Amino acid sequence: MLFSRGFSRIPRSSFNGLRRLFLSSQLEYCAYHFIHTNNPKFLPHSTHMVLSGRHDFFPGFLASLHGSRHQIHQQSSSIVEDQHDPFSLVADELSLVADRLRSMVIAEVPKLASAAEYFFKMGVEGKRFRPTVLLLMSTAVNLSVPEPPKGLGDSVTTEMRNRQQSIAEITEMIHVASLLHDDVLDDADTRRGIGSLNFVMGNKLAVLAGDFLLSRACVALASLKNTEVVSLLATVVEHLVTGETMQMTTSSGQRCSMEYYMQKTYYKTASLISNSCKAIALLAGQTEEVATLAYEYGKNLGLAYQLIDDVLDFTGTSASLGKGSLSDIRHGIVTAPILFAIEEFPQLRAVVEQGFDNPTNVDLALEYLGRSHGIQKTKELAMKHANLAAEAIDSLPENDDEDVKRSRRALVDLTQRVVKRTK
Amino acid sequence: MLFSRGFSRIPRSSFNGLRRLFLSSQLEYCAYHFIHTNNPKFLPHSTHMVLSGRHDFFPGFLASLHGSRHQIHQQSSSIVEDQHDPFSLVADELSLVADRLRSMVIAEVPKLASAAEYFFKMGVEGKRFRPTVLLLMSTAVNLSVPEPPKGLGDSVTTEMRNRQQSIAEITEMIHVASLLHDDVLDDADTRRGIGSLNFVMGNKLAVLAGDFLLSRACVALASLKNTEVVSLLATVVEHLVTGETMQMTTSSGQRCSMEYYMQKTYYKTASLISNSCKAIALLAGQTEEVATLAYEYGKNLGLAYQLIDDVLDFTGTSASLGKGSLSDIRHGIVTAPILFAIEEFPQLRAVVEQGFDNPTNVDLALEYLGRSHGIQKTKELAMKHANLAAEAIDSLPENDDEDVKRSRRALVDLTQRVVKRTK
Repeated sequence: MLFSRGFSRIPRSSFNGLRRLFLSSQLEYCAYHFIHTNNPKFLPHSTHMVLSGRHDFFPGFLASLHGSRHQIHQQSSSIVEDQHDPFSLVADELSLVADRLRSMVIAEVPKLASAAEYFFKMGVEGKRFRPTVLLLMSTAVNLSVPEPPKGLGDSVTTEMRNRQQSIAEITEMIHVASLLHDDVLDDADTRRGIGSLNFVMGNKLAVLAGDFLLSRACVALASLKNTEVVSLLATVVEHLVTGETMQMTTSSGQRCSMEYYMQKTYYKTASLISNSCKAIALLAGQTEEVATLAYEYGKNLGLAYQLIDDVLDFTGTSASLGKGSLSDIRHGIVTAPILFAIEEFPQLRAVVEQGFDNPTNVDLALEYLGRSHGIQKTKELAMKHANLAAEAIDSLPENDDEDVKRSRRALVDLTQRVVKRTK
Repeated sequence: MLFSRGFSRIPRSSFNGLRRLFLSSQLEYCAYHFIHTNNPKFLPHSTHMVLSGRHDFFPGFLASLHGSRHQIHQQSSSIVEDQHDPFSLVADELSLVADRLRSMVIAEVPKLASAAEYFFKMGVEGKRFRPTVLLLMSTAVNLSVPEPPKGLGDSVTTEMRNRQQSIAEITEMIHVASLLHDDVLDDADTRRGIGSLNFVMGNKLAVLAGDFLLSRACVALASLKNTEVVSLLATVVEHLVTGETMQMTTSSGQRCSMEYYMQKTYYKTASLISNSCKAIALLAGQTEEVATLAYEYGKNLGLAYQLIDDVLDFTGTSASLGKGSLSDIRHGIVTAPILFAIEEFPQLRAVVEQGFDNPTNVDLALEYLGRSHGIQKTKELAMKHANLAAEAIDSLPENDDEDVKRSRRALVDLTQRVVKRTK
């Protein structure tokens, strides 16, 4: 959910209100979040309408990820010299996974198949982020490592790798199923720049296609014959639903509550990538300790990405406040920058509790935000989580295998690319 | 899906068209279906809009099931002397299952819990049919049988029984999840005589609640640590979706195709009960042969019920054509009686292919149906499947345990009650 949103953003409209951006450092918040960050009940307070289908296609970010290599300061990693592009490391295997995904959603009913294939057909780069992370994690935690992929087929020389690739496929199916249902929920008429499925084919088919993908994901999970992994990913679906429902039914008080926000964010954004990373480690036959480190990487990477996404919704590609699409706040979704601003300007709480149906309230909130350190605090918090993700990788048991080391460097590299992006 | 539809029917309106009902015997069709009945690709041609939420609450049938004991001719069973009420045999255990279902859908988000509990709270008798069959099957196929339930707790004295009860709970969750989504799909404003969830709480919450139930079902499945059972029930979800999509995207030609209809009917109506019956046998540690007999019982019981349901949609509580709600045909859904009628009156095909938006076509189809043997052939086909279901039970390995014999008699009894019902 999380990444597709970030990878699929188009500034829907630019806001002409307040543009000032104040920068400062509020490390006490990072300290606060550092203390609480390993407790799902006290996750950093950032979220995003990851299930709402409110953002459209923006192809630039992956390109910027690819293009920005060599420009990253590895602040928390001991591996500063890494020059590897995380995406090219698994490019061939990604194609294999994409092909298998398409073949997995072939149904006996052509129309259902076409519905389920809808996103997989698009070749939207955004969809590649989760599989990239999971394939890199597969190598990073593998005890025995296969030859790096040289082409289709080479990357699936081991049964274990096959099973780990299945996790990447299952994760994408769960993700796309939720997108399909989200489009229905919100009657979204666009998705990644193209008409959403419910717009093109009707709500009914979109819901059915989502159910179909969930059932295929469940069948694929069962075929792994690992009930712990089945439980992990079934729980993810529950988390996605719970998070969305929490957001949907937020009371005016809860909308300003950091704790409520933390929990919702974990459910909505971090659970999928963190638990699938953990599943990868479990299938590798790794210890619970290593599986927990994989989980921590996914959780913190996801949270970091989301926090930056929340900032970009206000700033867009520029560094100026109001240049973003402002789609969150205009949909009444209160994200990290506003929550930080409330801590500085308690009178903003009344505005937030009134809601944002009235554009005047949006302007007012942006004015408070501009006078606060909300944007900067959110960026610092994102960097804190990026660093925690990198630390989780650095804490993995030492391994001299070059492929393992290369994949771990790539995973650390990703954490920094995610927070440095400006679009 | 199947049973709730049958158990929750209200004649929405009575049709004042043609009332004549011709009775005759067309055994060649029964022979035809008898030959093909074990091949899913050649399932008897009957179906029902089981996923469409088009029927409302009708409390009478269970009462009629209870009331009709001792009045049944055990046409295909060697056990003619059975006096047991199938429902009272498992009454205590059914309450336990219902209580556990309620506790299983408690969510951290009250509103989500209330949405998921929506149907379980209702105490709609219809929901009890599937668990009744599955609990009776649990005893019928158990190698070692616990004491018959005397009260809460007594019925869960063995781990195996616990796991079989879980199948009953999971089956209900999958069923209710599909109802929730169906209400959204069809924008149904009633369900079992009360406002449907999407009417009361909105489509969004109904879809989320369905997803939530599916995820809880998947977690519960995983806890059984039997990947074959997980695959079985995941496949059921896929079948429900496939069947619904087949119906949704039926071309005018397919609507008159028996084979298409047979396959769709299996997916939409028989898959859930047949595969959950099989899961019960597998959890009992039974052989593949016994598991297949359990599957055959569920499949044929489901098909028999559906065929009678199709008849009742035309005849209602009386034996007169046009007394039913006619909701199928009015929604353009062509069921067994019409398909049989087409075989006698090929000119009816043109009417069916035109669709039934025009009430004149409904009248015309009813006239052809009245002149045909469609109703009678459908009833005969239902009896054929009821008998096949009974034969599956009679084919189970002999067992002298009184509880086993009592449960088997009750299962056979059910097959006859289902086809004898007049409402």
